[in-house]
Amino acid sequence: MIFMTNFNYTDIEDAHDRIRSNVLKTPLVVSEHINYLTNANVFFKLENLQWTGSFKIRGASNKLTQLNSDEKNRGIVAYSSGNHAQAVAYVSKINNIAATIIMPNNAPFIKINNTKNYGAEVILYDPLTNCRENIAHEISKEKGKTIIRPYDDEDIIAGQGTAGKEIVEDLLNLHISPDIYLCCCGGGGLIAGTSTYLKYQFPDIRCYSVEPEEFNDTQVSLNKKKITPVKEGSQSICDALLAPQPGDITFEINKQTLKEGLSVSDNEVKKTIILLAENLKIIAEPGGAVAATALLNNKIDTNNKTIVVMISGGNIDNELFSNIVKGL
Amino acid sequence: MIFMTNFNYTDIEDAHDRIRSNVLKTPLVVSEHINYLTNANVFFKLENLQWTGSFKIRGASNKLTQLNSDEKNRGIVAYSSGNHAQAVAYVSKINNIAATIIMPNNAPFIKINNTKNYGAEVILYDPLTNCRENIAHEISKEKGKTIIRPYDDEDIIAGQGTAGKEIVEDLLNLHISPDIYLCCCGGGGLIAGTSTYLKYQFPDIRCYSVEPEEFNDTQVSLNKKKITPVKEGSQSICDALLAPQPGDITFEINKQTLKEGLSVSDNEVKKTIILLAENLKIIAEPGGAVAATALLNNKIDTNNKTIVVMISGGNIDNELFSNIVKGL
Repeated sequence: MIFMTNFNYTDIEDAHDRIRSNVLKTPLVVSEHINYLTNANVFFKLENLQWTGSFKIRGASNKLTQLNSDEKNRGIVAYSSGNHAQAVAYVSKINNIAATIIMPNNAPFIKINNTKNYGAEVILYDPLTNCRENIAHEISKEKGKTIIRPYDDEDIIAGQGTAGKEIVEDLLNLHISPDIYLCCCGGGGLIAGTSTYLKYQFPDIRCYSVEPEEFNDTQVSLNKKKITPVKEGSQSICDALLAPQPGDITFEINKQTLKEGLSVSDNEVKKTIILLAENLKIIAEPGGAVAATALLNNKIDTNNKTIVVMISGGNIDNELFSNIVKGL
Repeated sequence: MIFMTNFNYTDIEDAHDRIRSNVLKTPLVVSEHINYLTNANVFFKLENLQWTGSFKIRGASNKLTQLNSDEKNRGIVAYSSGNHAQAVAYVSKINNIAATIIMPNNAPFIKINNTKNYGAEVILYDPLTNCRENIAHEISKEKGKTIIRPYDDEDIIAGQGTAGKEIVEDLLNLHISPDIYLCCCGGGGLIAGTSTYLKYQFPDIRCYSVEPEEFNDTQVSLNKKKITPVKEGSQSICDALLAPQPGDITFEINKQTLKEGLSVSDNEVKKTIILLAENLKIIAEPGGAVAATALLNNKIDTNNKTIVVMISGGNIDNELFSNIVKGL
């Protein structure tokens, strides 16, 4: 299948007008110590501080607020490892929409609990034996609920892209033009949206996806110039980034905007979570820390570069975070 | 002794012009969930994200950059439980000034290590048997080094006040006028500077100091209208807030700008550190979390109020932070 899209920066500007009052304009911050370590000028976009603990509320807001009243009345169904789940549940609650969310039974407790606390009906499935898309399609067909995809939807991508618009606004205020953009990549929605906006404003910027090394489907797909899934049985602590292959729409966009793909090991991610805790005083979840991991582990030449690094989420169980920062 | 000061907002504006390129403009962020819990509109000023992990770099920058070349050549001496220590060491390094820092031998490891890593000579003393001011005065007399006080100095207070100027800028951009300001108080430098600027821009704002319950010297001193020290043997996990009594200059300012003093228990502080980790995804040290603790523990009426809360620092040992978030 060849997929064509006219997606562009104006979709992101429209989304921004639609959602800006419903999300936090997250900060773009600098760590003097990390600049010293990398000999670079690094700006961290703190989407872990975003409401519901990740950028996902942007896409969910942009999608759900555009449903018509009939669709809103019938409710929605979504599948997600957890951050999209929380965001969809939260936005549904605010907009008085009944939400059913399908989550893997091994998702972090914090993600399952928050999703329930936002009032959604949560259906847990076994990711080893079941397919979440199939469960969602069944529920959708049976109950007339609209499916809210986690990434392969232009409204979702445009919503996530609003984080890129905020980055651009802050950099233009500082009269800074970035050389490099590093962003995590699961299904590819966040990087598709944000890289579209960054490339629009800074055509020379080099955008890199960053993935866990066993879930580097976008890296491989970019190299092979076609969508290529990961090997069966692949594993990573980055629970937010376990999409088995790029989305059709996201890959169509990303192959135009991205320079190439990078990947990092779980062990490198853990060390980076400690470094971000000690130096930025922030809590990043594993998937939220992969872009910073690429920065800090010589995956690209950082020397004298101006680099934007996405910290996409902070939803990590206290137990796991504590063990990581204690070096356990 | 009656101490008179002409300290005012223009000192803070001058300091801001002097230091703005040497510090991070820290973010002012909102948590939708904490707004829900408090039924208030709460803005958190994240000085834990500041370079060196606390606001103290502001005062240190403002003081050290005004030393003359002779003073710079002879070097400086400072005493501090840790955040002023790190800030003075860091700014000294950048300005090529030899720094000697006197720290208690029970200061957090992270604070002692960072201070050494910034190149300062660290002298540890036993706070139960020695007086840090006396040690500093001896070194100053012997070696001609300038003493950099942690709070009772108008240049230090003006520097810390620049955090208040940033808060004002952000609130004016949002067309928001705050009702209440909550800020930690050790010696009182940060709250003296920031409350001066906030009162200048928002004359009706009610400013409250927040202290550990056994170190509530500013609360008691405000009530008694005279400087009153804490009881001997007082203890708290808030290592940054253990000044035994208000400073002469800081109290002179604070008795004009503050409505009254509040205090919180160590146990309330620990619960707040967990709540800030889970909801704001930030790492706050105990002393940095007391203002948020007052907010979240019914120390004031928050109902329908717009409230600014200072998070002053994030320098906490990984071991202690891990134990707190695990509920140990």
